[in-house]
Amino acid sequence: MEKIRILGIDTSLRSSGVAVIEVQGQQLRALAYGRIHNKPAMAHSACLAEIHRQVDSLITEFEPDEAAIEGAFFAKNAKTAMILGQARGSVLACCSLRTLPVFEYSPRSVKQAVVGVGAARKEQVAKMVMRLLGLKEQPQEDAADALAIAVTHAHQRGLPETLRSKAV
Amino acid sequence: MEKIRILGIDTSLRSSGVAVIEVQGQQLRALAYGRIHNKPAMAHSACLAEIHRQVDSLITEFEPDEAAIEGAFFAKNAKTAMILGQARGSVLACCSLRTLPVFEYSPRSVKQAVVGVGAARKEQVAKMVMRLLGLKEQPQEDAADALAIAVTHAHQRGLPETLRSKAV
Repeated sequence: MEKIRILGIDTSLRSSGVAVIEVQGQQLRALAYGRIHNKPAMAHSACLAEIHRQVDSLITEFEPDEAAIEGAFFAKNAKTAMILGQARGSVLACCSLRTLPVFEYSPRSVKQAVVGVGAARKEQVAKMVMRLLGLKEQPQEDAADALAIAVTHAHQRGLPETLRSKAV
Repeated sequence: MEKIRILGIDTSLRSSGVAVIEVQGQQLRALAYGRIHNKPAMAHSACLAEIHRQVDSLITEFEPDEAAIEGAFFAKNAKTAMILGQARGSVLACCSLRTLPVFEYSPRSVKQAVVGVGAARKEQVAKMVMRLLGLKEQPQEDAADALAIAVTHAHQRGLPETLRSKAV
């Protein structure tokens, strides 16, 4: 049965969660997860370069087939949206330069897919991700979100094409 | 007298203006200008990759010392801010990966520096850029904006450090 690898990214300027999972039929396995932590003292452009570099190096190391990111539906105002947009821009450009298709999921649909409830708390997401992937310890919050996004995409891939999320 | 090269970028998803000028004392010279045109049919991530690629190749070809971009002060709502933010993220990550310091100027300060009036029209900016750089033809609008941003940075570099714009 075909094995595919999914790169999940929960994008933000200072602390992006990243994860790579492997999917084979119903089996899911976490290959790597963690976060890209940019210190408060770093200039925005340095943070964006660091995000690009780290995502690029994950792609080189794990050779994922597809990427999934959290949709940007929750930006409250123009300033937050701009900062988040920049982080997304760095990630999207990097994935596209490496010819990796990127799919986008709303925070609500990620929670729905992983916990079964669109309004689930972060703690519930982390616990469920831990169980679904058979992890021994609860992952850090942003890493858990990245794993959840990757798991959501794994589920969506099983759906007929018309029901699937589109690449951004 | 020291020669420096400035990369000016007027960032947007579908049509970014780009320009490289050379500054030596009071002398300004345009080395290259144009725009990165992404067709409406292209996915966002493909546009962002194209912006990254083109900016990267300008840096390789012209080896600018510093970059200047338009500040993101005009985004009206979260959705526009997100799209513009993504384009900026691609540019900022690229410049920072190439260790190029990036400075940011508000549209108003660019008009003020080039035309002498913060509320100048685009047409006036293009005409003044043409005159300042001794161009034979009026540049395309986005290219003219990129030239104007580069010229603004050239002016700012002459100021005492405390009055200068900070890198982003």
